[in-house]
Amino acid sequence: MHDLMIIGSGPAGVSAALTAQARNLDFLWFGSPELSMKIQRAERIRNYPGLPDVAGETMQQVFLRQIEDAGITLTPERINAIYPMGAYYAASVNKKVYEAKAILLATGIQTTKTIPGEAELLGKGVSYCATCDGFLYKQKKVAVICTSPKFEPEIEYLADIASQVTLFTTYKGCGIQKGNVTSVAGYPSKILGTDHVQALVCQGQETSVDGVFFLKDSVSPAVLLKGLEMDDSHIQVDRMQKTNLEGCYAAGDCTGRPYQYAKAVGEGNVALHSILEYLAACASSNK
Amino acid sequence: MHDLMIIGSGPAGVSAALTAQARNLDFLWFGSPELSMKIQRAERIRNYPGLPDVAGETMQQVFLRQIEDAGITLTPERINAIYPMGAYYAASVNKKVYEAKAILLATGIQTTKTIPGEAELLGKGVSYCATCDGFLYKQKKVAVICTSPKFEPEIEYLADIASQVTLFTTYKGCGIQKGNVTSVAGYPSKILGTDHVQALVCQGQETSVDGVFFLKDSVSPAVLLKGLEMDDSHIQVDRMQKTNLEGCYAAGDCTGRPYQYAKAVGEGNVALHSILEYLAACASSNK
Repeated sequence: MHDLMIIGSGPAGVSAALTAQARNLDFLWFGSPELSMKIQRAERIRNYPGLPDVAGETMQQVFLRQIEDAGITLTPERINAIYPMGAYYAASVNKKVYEAKAILLATGIQTTKTIPGEAELLGKGVSYCATCDGFLYKQKKVAVICTSPKFEPEIEYLADIASQVTLFTTYKGCGIQKGNVTSVAGYPSKILGTDHVQALVCQGQETSVDGVFFLKDSVSPAVLLKGLEMDDSHIQVDRMQKTNLEGCYAAGDCTGRPYQYAKAVGEGNVALHSILEYLAACASSNK
Repeated sequence: MHDLMIIGSGPAGVSAALTAQARNLDFLWFGSPELSMKIQRAERIRNYPGLPDVAGETMQQVFLRQIEDAGITLTPERINAIYPMGAYYAASVNKKVYEAKAILLATGIQTTKTIPGEAELLGKGVSYCATCDGFLYKQKKVAVICTSPKFEPEIEYLADIASQVTLFTTYKGCGIQKGNVTSVAGYPSKILGTDHVQALVCQGQETSVDGVFFLKDSVSPAVLLKGLEMDDSHIQVDRMQKTNLEGCYAAGDCTGRPYQYAKAVGEGNVALHSILEYLAACASSNK
């Protein structure tokens, strides 16, 4: 059982991980090896104290080096679901389960909105992980909504299993060349089905499918962790970055505007300090 | 009339000033030319993203250069009092008055507590500024509570005017050598007087004085701006860094723990974004 799992590797996650390491916490940190697409693609950041008028790519390199020098390990996995287990949390990814006493959500803000049916049919035909659930769709029809070229290997894998793949990409120049993959323009508006996925609707057109895969950097927090109180599309937190769930904290863009590096870094730090207090209280009540 | 006055030049003030400049705000920024004693004296900072394992002095130098490169001017004055004027704020220092539509308090945390009588007798014998009020004590007896050698010229100035100076310093090795200055060990516990200062109490001993000067980096926010809602010794703010006073925001250590650079930087950024919204709302309601 670890002390903490940090989900997300943007500035909030980086800040929290650096403080967790400085405070000798036993923590797991999940994210992308490139940390954050948002940082990487930022042209210039003019108001981050300490890195004057910096290109996003430079900030990324500085963060990567700092993490490495601090001896911090990033686990490059996308967590698909988190379960509150009473006194701890379980996070599942690729059929593995990780456990920790506390959890910090630093998942960033979704560029793609959750569509009707997505949360309701999760685990009933909706999946966020081809590697985990692809095998269920042998010779079946699936739809894939893909937000980045880096997920294309997962599309290829699905195309090898399924009979037909209907593909929606949110970027241009998709590199997939497979006979059973049909690219469709637009973004789906809803998923139909009651007990299980039956069809996908896009621009009024229904496509009958057995499964729908969303391949995106981060899953909506409300879908990731059921019972989390949201304020519109943001996680509700107090000044100490505490959510409505005991032992669960959030930091960065996922908690609301302004979507700023400095704000995310500050919140990651505050959340970590709250978590230290939480863990100390847990430890003393267990004595 | 300026848009904004930022009071304080620690990390929260630096962050706010950088964002204010990036957003072309017409603002005044008050603080120390060395920015923050706390930063300058920090041995090593291990968890600030972007400046790996940095000495406080290096962080200070980086911040100073960044401010200069951004073309930001720091006004090196200590604001003694702020007055809410309805639609704007007035800040007074050294007999000058500055005005702005909004105010950001980034005053840090007091290392010295406010003692009984200090706030009550401010302007009635209690002063935070020798240059401003020294002339009132010609041939009179004053007490001085001094927190840093950098204020010693103010003590010398007072010694030239007053008949007797009773001096309390919170540091060792005070360099003042004047016949009418008597150094006393300890820190005063209260100031006596009803309409005006009459005496100072230290370790049970009363010393009769006409005036009491506190020479310190920053004045308690509750004394600086009357009516500000406090939570113990911290300014009460919401998630947007708004205080209970319209147009008044606060950021950094003065709003509470953790006393961390990252937290202060984040709050300075958030406060500035809230102020931008506030100013936009003011502008549109004035149309």
